[in-house]
Amino acid sequence: MRMAELSHTSGCTVATIKYYLRQGLLMPGQGTAVTQATYERRHLDRLRLIRVLREVGDIPVARVGEVLAAIDDTQRPLVDVLRAAHHALGPAPVDEGPGHAEARREVVGYVVSRGWDVDPRAPSFDVLAGALTALRRLGYPCSPEVFSDYADAAFALAGAELDGGFIDPSGGPAATVAQVVVGTVVYEQALSALRRLAEEHHSNRRFGVPVAKKTGRRRR
Amino acid sequence: MRMAELSHTSGCTVATIKYYLRQGLLMPGQGTAVTQATYERRHLDRLRLIRVLREVGDIPVARVGEVLAAIDDTQRPLVDVLRAAHHALGPAPVDEGPGHAEARREVVGYVVSRGWDVDPRAPSFDVLAGALTALRRLGYPCSPEVFSDYADAAFALAGAELDGGFIDPSGGPAATVAQVVVGTVVYEQALSALRRLAEEHHSNRRFGVPVAKKTGRRRR
Repeated sequence: MRMAELSHTSGCTVATIKYYLRQGLLMPGQGTAVTQATYERRHLDRLRLIRVLREVGDIPVARVGEVLAAIDDTQRPLVDVLRAAHHALGPAPVDEGPGHAEARREVVGYVVSRGWDVDPRAPSFDVLAGALTALRRLGYPCSPEVFSDYADAAFALAGAELDGGFIDPSGGPAATVAQVVVGTVVYEQALSALRRLAEEHHSNRRFGVPVAKKTGRRRR
Repeated sequence: MRMAELSHTSGCTVATIKYYLRQGLLMPGQGTAVTQATYERRHLDRLRLIRVLREVGDIPVARVGEVLAAIDDTQRPLVDVLRAAHHALGPAPVDEGPGHAEARREVVGYVVSRGWDVDPRAPSFDVLAGALTALRRLGYPCSPEVFSDYADAAFALAGAELDGGFIDPSGGPAATVAQVVVGTVVYEQALSALRRLAEEHHSNRRFGVPVAKKTGRRRR
């Protein structure tokens, strides 16, 4: 297909596709010039993957390049490719306030002590350390054990994701990376929303009259 | 105390305190002029609460005013005050793409069918509907039942939060709102981070050799 059709079918503008070509994220088509080249199914698949990484994963272009390089390296074991995707999803550490490095060591030690097999460089440790330091700063002295219920739930959910077949490596590393990004990001949004709704439910049950059964009189 | 001490003790700049005074978020001190007025413990407590709402909850100033008004309304049942805080934490609906309204009806119906007592206007329904439409757009046809494991986990966690005494209404509505904001936001960050770390663990166990035990040879 030509550039115009690639743009139409992928949903990416021509300018965006040219940008990805210049950045080396998209392999060149066959032909004499960018707009006169011929593109194939693999170009479309690559653009779809880039969209998932950029739009769902919110991954910066430079880090998208790293994930794609890992996918393209046929010598690289799948587990390494998936770890690269996991880490690319993590936020870049910002605004590391006082106590962050110490809190980070504590949460890494906590997670390792639970027997989790995780790279200590995982950016999610920065998020977890940030939550610990936030609690301390706000006047709740605590150790990482305060997160134990959440760790148990997270461990069970993540295991069920793999058991449920949502992550299926049979389609190759590119398709598997897309599943990992969608599974991680979209279900995280759903889990956060459901927890907030559940908190409202339990708060209503604990402290008030049910919304659905509210009458003219209000109970205090 | 004078303005300078209020600023120093609260950690808010004088300019910020004056802004909150102008916006009506902070009650005026006793005195003839802003900087010559005398401020008390209740001013300090209010500033601390505003900081939690603004900095932890990331709540816009206008919505902070709504939550504070709910707290200050002594006729208002605690459950209503907490619901106002929950909803203020929710994102303002943005970028509602095609299928959002229908997906929102579906997720509200799903949550209600589980027996959850939640106001259908809760902004978390927009987030949950967004996750559903994202999955569909990305080529995973699904119903809200796809979130059932997450709903079960969220329900159990939110219940444990109340049972664990983290939300203790004995300190009055202002202190309870601060607990709700910290509990909702900070533990959500921790839960998301822990789920990502658990995903990495399960991915390592399923697809590769453990990081800690990696040798020179790599298993494919």
